[in-house]
Amino acid sequence: MDNFARRRADVELGAESLTPIRTLDERLAAWREVTGRDIGFRELDVAKDYDELCELLQALRPEAVVHFAEQRAAPYSMKSSWHKRYTVDNNVNATNNLLAAIVETGVDCHVVHLGTMGVYGYGTAGTKIPEGYLSVRMDGADGTEIEQEILHPTNPGSIYHLTKTQDQLLFAFYNKNDEIRVTDLHQGIVWGTQTAETKLDDRLINRFDYDGDYGTVLNRFLMQAAIGHPLTVHGTGGQTRAFIHIQDTVRCIRLALENPPQRGERVRIFNQMTEVHRLRDLAGIVQELTGAEIEYVGNPRKEAFENELAVDNQRLLDLGLSPTTLADDLMREVAEIAERFKHRCDRSKIPARSRWVREAEPDMRAERTGRTQAAPAPAGLGSRGHDG
Amino acid sequence: MDNFARRRADVELGAESLTPIRTLDERLAAWREVTGRDIGFRELDVAKDYDELCELLQALRPEAVVHFAEQRAAPYSMKSSWHKRYTVDNNVNATNNLLAAIVETGVDCHVVHLGTMGVYGYGTAGTKIPEGYLSVRMDGADGTEIEQEILHPTNPGSIYHLTKTQDQLLFAFYNKNDEIRVTDLHQGIVWGTQTAETKLDDRLINRFDYDGDYGTVLNRFLMQAAIGHPLTVHGTGGQTRAFIHIQDTVRCIRLALENPPQRGERVRIFNQMTEVHRLRDLAGIVQELTGAEIEYVGNPRKEAFENELAVDNQRLLDLGLSPTTLADDLMREVAEIAERFKHRCDRSKIPARSRWVREAEPDMRAERTGRTQAAPAPAGLGSRGHDG
Repeated sequence: MDNFARRRADVELGAESLTPIRTLDERLAAWREVTGRDIGFRELDVAKDYDELCELLQALRPEAVVHFAEQRAAPYSMKSSWHKRYTVDNNVNATNNLLAAIVETGVDCHVVHLGTMGVYGYGTAGTKIPEGYLSVRMDGADGTEIEQEILHPTNPGSIYHLTKTQDQLLFAFYNKNDEIRVTDLHQGIVWGTQTAETKLDDRLINRFDYDGDYGTVLNRFLMQAAIGHPLTVHGTGGQTRAFIHIQDTVRCIRLALENPPQRGERVRIFNQMTEVHRLRDLAGIVQELTGAEIEYVGNPRKEAFENELAVDNQRLLDLGLSPTTLADDLMREVAEIAERFKHRCDRSKIPARSRWVREAEPDMRAERTGRTQAAPAPAGLGSRGHDG
Repeated sequence: MDNFARRRADVELGAESLTPIRTLDERLAAWREVTGRDIGFRELDVAKDYDELCELLQALRPEAVVHFAEQRAAPYSMKSSWHKRYTVDNNVNATNNLLAAIVETGVDCHVVHLGTMGVYGYGTAGTKIPEGYLSVRMDGADGTEIEQEILHPTNPGSIYHLTKTQDQLLFAFYNKNDEIRVTDLHQGIVWGTQTAETKLDDRLINRFDYDGDYGTVLNRFLMQAAIGHPLTVHGTGGQTRAFIHIQDTVRCIRLALENPPQRGERVRIFNQMTEVHRLRDLAGIVQELTGAEIEYVGNPRKEAFENELAVDNQRLLDLGLSPTTLADDLMREVAEIAERFKHRCDRSKIPARSRWVREAEPDMRAERTGRTQAAPAPAGLGSRGHDG
């Protein structure tokens, strides 16, 4: 099921995937041609078409539902009041509709949801991020001390991330009240564009977003290198983030599907990431690979300038995930795709123009935040303005 | 601003306030007549009419907004998929619209929101409930231990309560990102019906809900006593809950308004309650006052059968709240109102018919849950079925 919201956002933003992504009909036909297998499809808005969603669940009685029906970009969610309101309305209602529909139809299906590592916020505490739950001590009503496992505290950095923290509460409630089985995959920043399946045919190629709203950092760097644009590092580049290659994303979803929770088991939360990098180091790696320049530009986000990050991803490793890392050759593959389609790039779409705080200038200061000491502001900072 | 959702729910449920609540126009006119003062009013749906909300904020530039624009009953929120979806959609969008509108208009107003003690869940942990925040220890990314204040973990018992936990996340985000000043009043179960203001004129009388969806427990007991109906205790009556008289609710809102947070201050969270009672003890108090019988009926909710509860309400006491308790004479006043309007009671609306779990029989077991030992099931349990 899809409502083509992402394609409509392209129209709204006047942006396009760097890769020439085909219509869904063409992609489904190509898949049939190449593999002899069918993928079913229904155009449907999960956040709105509740009755149709129930009918489909009732008719298909699926073993699992992979729930990606959410607006998925932090900068897009912060562009304006409309975008904030759309993101909250769409994401929270989509998740609640799905869960209510599963209860109403009585279908015993496993929900695999794409969350985000960003629910935890970055750098505000410098904590090691465990998988979903945290054991804390509280004062008991009777004066004794009580140890309890709680959902790990969140500190979302945008309206988009916020909606995923609201989703968590929905999952926890329906899991407790109705024993709905859920795996929530808190994903890092995805890079890469091809998977084993999409490589089968050119018509199956995935999106490659490079614009300031939907493009993710490593793909943006590789595309920028391909067109001779400096690598745009926001702020000091001291932000440390978790990453995962798109092929591993697919593997993780498969691992989650093959290992469903038992009825009555609490929500499973996996950290779906394979490695951690500081953004300026990442720019350095791409520079080494491609010879591109690096440019430090203003940071439109309100976030810690520098942070440490350590993430536990043991549960997916235990299920058999064998991480693809930047050290593997796949970064070169992405660079080749960027090179192949660079004629499709609209340079005016590269700057990240969505501001976290209204009317404010992008913040160029490097200052002490949280537990980390900011690096000195790089020389030439801001010389080209925020849009690089 | 009001969209009259509560009056429409009466129509939907075929229920009415025990007291003859007047139209808003009549109430506003009565207020003007009695006090010589005007209360402005605009019919508006905060969850939908975003542009009009912005225009009003822009025109009025209020110092504060008291935000009650939410579906407020747990049983109503659990009646069906429609009610779950309506409650989530209405409550989350109302709160997000208000916050987005404040950011968009740049009006520096204090938001006073009615939360609920129910965000914490009852009896699952037996913890003492502090005011909003909890200090916890986490592992640091660098191997050290970090102490951090987090929003107190939640464990909502219904979709309604869940939406208030989602609201908390919205407040925390807009407070962090946009420095919106918020006081969140986590209220206990309200009892009573009159305040100093509504007593000024019969036409100003407040609602008195006694139906299974919107009626609150102590008011229901007093009304049941007035009509010679047994006091309906759900389950074992071992549930311990926090209470507040409606007059104190008004005082607390006033105290919150008179003591706004500073710009940049984190969300203030007060526990708006004055005393704690176990439900079967409460029934005992009403029995003593009125001579009514007590009947133990099935519990439609999924909750702990027995729980301890201790709540910190020091911050409102420090601001000057002088609690009205059951020991005061106000319980008699409520009994008198119930007596005066008992001819308006529709006995068929008394049973709580909204089930937490689909198709399930109301749970009559008394079992060990959480940290508390259940009392033995009272004799005659269930002899009249769940609707008493």
